[in-house]
Amino acid sequence: MSKFYQAHKDTLDRAVEASRTRDYWSPYPEIASGKIYGETAKEDGAAAFKARLGQPFHLPGHPDGGTPVGAESSPYGRALNIKYPSAPVDTLVAASRKAGADWAAATIEDRVGVCLEILQRLNANSFEMAHAVSQTTGQAFMMAFQAGGPHAQDRGLEAVAYAYGEMIRTPTTAIWTKPQGKHDPLVMEKDYRIVPRGVALTIGCATFPTWNGYPGLFASLATGNPVIVKPHPGAILPLAITVETGRQVLKEAGFDPNVLLLAADEPGAEITKELVVHPDIKIIDFTGSNAFGQWVRENAGAGTQVYTEEAGVNSIVIASTDNFRGMCANIAFSLSLYSGQMCTAPQNIYVPENGIETDDGHKSFDEVAQGIKAAVDKLLADPDRAAGICGAISNDAVSKRVRDAEKLGTVLRPSETISALPEARTATPMILTIREADSKAHLEERFGPISFIIATRDAAQAITQAAALASDKGAITAAIYATDDATLDAAANAFAASGVGLSCNLTGGIFVNQNAAFSDYHVSGANPAGNACLTDTAFVASRFTIATIRRHKAA
Amino acid sequence: MSKFYQAHKDTLDRAVEASRTRDYWSPYPEIASGKIYGETAKEDGAAAFKARLGQPFHLPGHPDGGTPVGAESSPYGRALNIKYPSAPVDTLVAASRKAGADWAAATIEDRVGVCLEILQRLNANSFEMAHAVSQTTGQAFMMAFQAGGPHAQDRGLEAVAYAYGEMIRTPTTAIWTKPQGKHDPLVMEKDYRIVPRGVALTIGCATFPTWNGYPGLFASLATGNPVIVKPHPGAILPLAITVETGRQVLKEAGFDPNVLLLAADEPGAEITKELVVHPDIKIIDFTGSNAFGQWVRENAGAGTQVYTEEAGVNSIVIASTDNFRGMCANIAFSLSLYSGQMCTAPQNIYVPENGIETDDGHKSFDEVAQGIKAAVDKLLADPDRAAGICGAISNDAVSKRVRDAEKLGTVLRPSETISALPEARTATPMILTIREADSKAHLEERFGPISFIIATRDAAQAITQAAALASDKGAITAAIYATDDATLDAAANAFAASGVGLSCNLTGGIFVNQNAAFSDYHVSGANPAGNACLTDTAFVASRFTIATIRRHKAA
Repeated sequence: MSKFYQAHKDTLDRAVEASRTRDYWSPYPEIASGKIYGETAKEDGAAAFKARLGQPFHLPGHPDGGTPVGAESSPYGRALNIKYPSAPVDTLVAASRKAGADWAAATIEDRVGVCLEILQRLNANSFEMAHAVSQTTGQAFMMAFQAGGPHAQDRGLEAVAYAYGEMIRTPTTAIWTKPQGKHDPLVMEKDYRIVPRGVALTIGCATFPTWNGYPGLFASLATGNPVIVKPHPGAILPLAITVETGRQVLKEAGFDPNVLLLAADEPGAEITKELVVHPDIKIIDFTGSNAFGQWVRENAGAGTQVYTEEAGVNSIVIASTDNFRGMCANIAFSLSLYSGQMCTAPQNIYVPENGIETDDGHKSFDEVAQGIKAAVDKLLADPDRAAGICGAISNDAVSKRVRDAEKLGTVLRPSETISALPEARTATPMILTIREADSKAHLEERFGPISFIIATRDAAQAITQAAALASDKGAITAAIYATDDATLDAAANAFAASGVGLSCNLTGGIFVNQNAAFSDYHVSGANPAGNACLTDTAFVASRFTIATIRRHKAA
Repeated sequence: MSKFYQAHKDTLDRAVEASRTRDYWSPYPEIASGKIYGETAKEDGAAAFKARLGQPFHLPGHPDGGTPVGAESSPYGRALNIKYPSAPVDTLVAASRKAGADWAAATIEDRVGVCLEILQRLNANSFEMAHAVSQTTGQAFMMAFQAGGPHAQDRGLEAVAYAYGEMIRTPTTAIWTKPQGKHDPLVMEKDYRIVPRGVALTIGCATFPTWNGYPGLFASLATGNPVIVKPHPGAILPLAITVETGRQVLKEAGFDPNVLLLAADEPGAEITKELVVHPDIKIIDFTGSNAFGQWVRENAGAGTQVYTEEAGVNSIVIASTDNFRGMCANIAFSLSLYSGQMCTAPQNIYVPENGIETDDGHKSFDEVAQGIKAAVDKLLADPDRAAGICGAISNDAVSKRVRDAEKLGTVLRPSETISALPEARTATPMILTIREADSKAHLEERFGPISFIIATRDAAQAITQAAALASDKGAITAAIYATDDATLDAAANAFAASGVGLSCNLTGGIFVNQNAAFSDYHVSGANPAGNACLTDTAFVASRFTIATIRRHKAA
């Protein structure tokens, strides 16, 4: 049995258990501390990242032959000048198929062991990954460490645990004995084989390349499918490091490292579509826009399994609260974190036009809106703190969207740059107020630090509207503030029916934009924000099929 | 807790266990005996069926308002003259949605209990069902009893067991406790809700309306989705009886019986397409042709879950045998059963052009072909026995296909009518010989009693060709006869990779066209014979999603 499997079996068992109990658990510490990761880990990670800059990215044995590609530019203000190997799509797919044969024939334990070892090594390298994620996506360093490192590794491990549980569900052999009355029974011996689908494609996104990429990547890998990783051209490095690590482990385990391939490209010369329509691509995991998600869903081959996380409009409904300050502070952090560039960030905040009851007495609509604005201002008053929370803006299109948003309503809080990051592309939250009856601006996703505080008739109307919007345009998260069970129940019913996870009365250290592995189902697959969930059984079960081989049992 | 659930909990537990061990198991006896089903069961079933003829089929409380429909005509030679309630598609879907609200909110145990009670009552009524299936599909009575009754019920129960297992996988509540070093931990209370997809549509087929219909029907029902059953216009009665039984149980359990609806129609005025494209249809289970299957897959709504069993070309490869007589007899039965009108029936029989080694010495290609022909002749020599095995031909298109097949090769055995069934539409197996290098006739499905004995270069070539054909056109079953492990292994590898179940050296009372619930995975979803498997986890896991509702835990 695989030494990697043996080494990580306890981690696997605990991951399977966590996915069932859904309590908090992680083997990958989220504290970026030298005490945990090694006294020199921080400096080593920084040095490793720095050594990548301006250099070709070597992947020994990887198909190449094309001109090296790569045009990443940091939102913090410098070009990375890293060039990655490139090869024609047909070459990549052929190499993947070739490597995939032995991978498909490997034991479940061998494959899962390799996956767990890859995750372990990625974890040890979390500091370098933090730099890579931060400098490609614009996330602040601490967030990049957590979301790009341990939390992404958690999501990968979760996928491996689900895949493992599903693969061992069917026995490898069975004896089938059918009584025949007075006659001898019919006895058949049956073998069951896990048959992987074939070449898998993981299409990465610009903002959370590892967190969103790892579930599909590891689910496909564990179930025996070779994987081609197609990063967003703006965020190649985090996934290139992942591929590099994976290939090293594969090679050490005796597999062809081409089980894991990198398909890098540059803006304006993307190879994504060519990969999607390739007849040998059998699984696609996509994170990105609804428009391109639809294209992928409609253009992938007939038998191709497609899993998407697209986008949506996330809402908060404020009906009442017994902790007005805590509510405003909590919402302010959710709006500010990574400048709202999270698929889970709230955009629409519904407040009854006649105001709400709070622990601090009745608050008018304007007082609630001002409370949220003031909380954002306070949170971001210190420029260094603002930099640490907001980070930078992923790309120019987001910046432009923020500028254009001024016209969409009454500006309650203008977006500002962050003085502590003079060379970076930055934008703090822009908050607009609108009246629900008069506006359509809030009815579509406005990705970035743009949010609407919406004057609505009452909480019931807000819940109905927000849930309907989720069904229509998609949503991944929702939040409700209410002091009465009837309103909480109404929200739970409405958002559950629309396929949206609901957070109730968050006022402390948990935020609506955080979804934890092993506990929070991220995306439901039941509204346009995506067709799959990270991670549930459906996310892994179709990545392989089961072949039965039966014969009469020898007497 | 539901009384139905309590009554059938042991059956459910054993079904879950059987799906894991994959040993033989069934709670529904396949012996059509009065000792098991009650001394008067046979006569009662016959009388109940007879009483349906020429009458309107009443479904109390079912939407109607249209002109009653129904134009079923028995392959045994009489019109059934049964008229079923009919209503506009919008009316049916609206009634389904309305009834579905309470059904979605019911407990897992309540829903599963209702499903198990429906199956129990269907089992008790297996004699009437046998008449209904036989007289609409053409199956011989004994086969209609088994395949249309207990075996179909097994497949329904299997789907319920998988659905149940998947629904209880996630706890209904969890406490999530995240340590915060020296500070108090973050504690969240989380509720998880099963959220059904919405209205499900089951599209029945003409040949096995219950066996192929029950898996999807019960999987959708158990997971909380109301179901509209759209039978093939030629085989309405078996599914109408199923709907009738289901509605009675639903009503007794306090649910709106419209959770289960019948959408009957007539040839030339089918309402299938209108149902498929209806925006409120969220799940579709389809059994039928590749052409219409493709239409369904391409035209169903973007978020609709579509599960298909389509068609394919099933092959037998003969490399060698240590039981020539047993092999020929086994194949003869597989060709004759229900006149080859099974999605699992073999069509292509590959034999090396230089013959094979057997326990009876070397046999030339012609001798092998003659051996199979002679076994069919012997099996069907007695007209009553022929009637009992072959039954009747489902529809005129199959009869025409048999007549037209004469030109496709050298006729080794002409198809004949069955003298014991003078008023029925009958056709015994037509067997043609062809040379693989010279023919394309065997490269497409020829549904009905048409098979090709194909002269091939050698067994290795035959395995490669048959597996490639399965990948290209689909296949559900394959069989290999070989006395050496190398050939058996080569076949296992090739057919597994093509998503086909393989039977090795069948010479006794098990036939390649039989797939047993809880043990044999029927259809893989990995070739064009269908995109889903009856039944595996993937078949049930996407019929619902899970909503998370989380809040700070009260101290």
